[in-house]
Amino acid sequence: MPRYALHIEYDGGPFCGWQRQSGGLLSVQGAVEQALARLEPKQHTIAAAGRTDAGVHATGQVAHADLTKNWDPFRLSGAINAHLRPHPVSITACARVADDFHARFSARERRYLFRLVTRRAPATHDRGLVWQVSHALDLAAMQAGAAHLIGLHDFTTFRSALCQSASPVKTLDEITITQHAYPNGTEYRFALRARSFLHNQVRSIVGTLERVGAGAWAPAQVATALHAQNRAACGPVCPPQGLYLKGVQYPNDPFKTA
Amino acid sequence: MPRYALHIEYDGGPFCGWQRQSGGLLSVQGAVEQALARLEPKQHTIAAAGRTDAGVHATGQVAHADLTKNWDPFRLSGAINAHLRPHPVSITACARVADDFHARFSARERRYLFRLVTRRAPATHDRGLVWQVSHALDLAAMQAGAAHLIGLHDFTTFRSALCQSASPVKTLDEITITQHAYPNGTEYRFALRARSFLHNQVRSIVGTLERVGAGAWAPAQVATALHAQNRAACGPVCPPQGLYLKGVQYPNDPFKTA
Repeated sequence: MPRYALHIEYDGGPFCGWQRQSGGLLSVQGAVEQALARLEPKQHTIAAAGRTDAGVHATGQVAHADLTKNWDPFRLSGAINAHLRPHPVSITACARVADDFHARFSARERRYLFRLVTRRAPATHDRGLVWQVSHALDLAAMQAGAAHLIGLHDFTTFRSALCQSASPVKTLDEITITQHAYPNGTEYRFALRARSFLHNQVRSIVGTLERVGAGAWAPAQVATALHAQNRAACGPVCPPQGLYLKGVQYPNDPFKTA
Repeated sequence: MPRYALHIEYDGGPFCGWQRQSGGLLSVQGAVEQALARLEPKQHTIAAAGRTDAGVHATGQVAHADLTKNWDPFRLSGAINAHLRPHPVSITACARVADDFHARFSARERRYLFRLVTRRAPATHDRGLVWQVSHALDLAAMQAGAAHLIGLHDFTTFRSALCQSASPVKTLDEITITQHAYPNGTEYRFALRARSFLHNQVRSIVGTLERVGAGAWAPAQVATALHAQNRAACGPVCPPQGLYLKGVQYPNDPFKTA
């Protein structure tokens, strides 16, 4: 059975999340599996690098699928996209990979982007694509708070109670916050990079740093919260619609020649 | 009756266009007038700088409204926005203006942006916000074609049969085409600037230049089409969803201190 890696972009708005669920809820995984079943009728089960939550977007999700036929990757992505309509999900690249490639277990780095917009007037074109607040934020304070989180830590504070990860100890390789022009407001982009993330880790971190930016928390309180190793010490978890899975890195980039 | 200028942003997707129409169609004008009627009950009639078509967006539309009460502009925009939900329309600035200010007739320049994306995989987050084609485009050829349109011309070729403008002679002050990175594709942005535009002029121009970029038209054919002064010589009119009214200029910027 030839194995294919799929590079996937989606608007998380209409979905219950990546993962297929019982009860007829619409999932990204289910939408892609149903498109594959139109090409090769059977119950497909695909695995993805990041099991994004309801409302969370992706511009660089990666999944793998096992098919029966030898598909030309270029034609395969076009055929899946044709069957994905009208869902806001697109296969943006496709490649034949070795049988031991696993979208989740072979991944050695995930990158997330979080878009936080501060302006008074409600968003129109970016509705559902950013988290919007109406108060001002202090970039330097958020950066100072974020600096405490870089490196190897027990992230119990920033982990959902539902997290299934074996250990709360993770290395956060990067958290960069940049400020961008936004019509009649300001956009803050949070770029996070790690081998892997705990459940709700990014939204717990961004929600806490927003409190720092608003002046409700001192930057040093982020360190206090981290060292508490206690979920109750976390700031509010921010909403999902600003979060994007941007990319996944593998020892050999499957899409390099795609 | 104090007069207020409103700076308006909207997603044109769900609307029949700016202009209020009979038959219960949802227009941007109607949505704003209904919000105003929640503040001061009466039939409001507001005038806008650009009567955008169905599906066309704005980030800098300007309209004026006559109210009875003396509103603080900051509170007025907030109150209108509260009543505009759940429509994707926002008042992004508001200012008290002189009684002789007219959003349409006082305007001395309009700026439009057109977003054209070329990539194979269907757009997800930008669905309805860009015009997407799947073939490659030649930037230099489109720029060469566009150069023929700068200046004072009879734009009969690039004008809808429904255009109500007294004269087809207009001065196009700017048409700049730039290339931008887009995930797994390329975005071309067309920036157009003129005192005023004819009905469908921007979409007729962009649709024609896309044919040049695709190689179906030589750049010089744009000049031939222009000089024909004949609607039949125009290329295909492109769809509305890539078009944005970006801004309107007045002798005195009403929002400068807002």
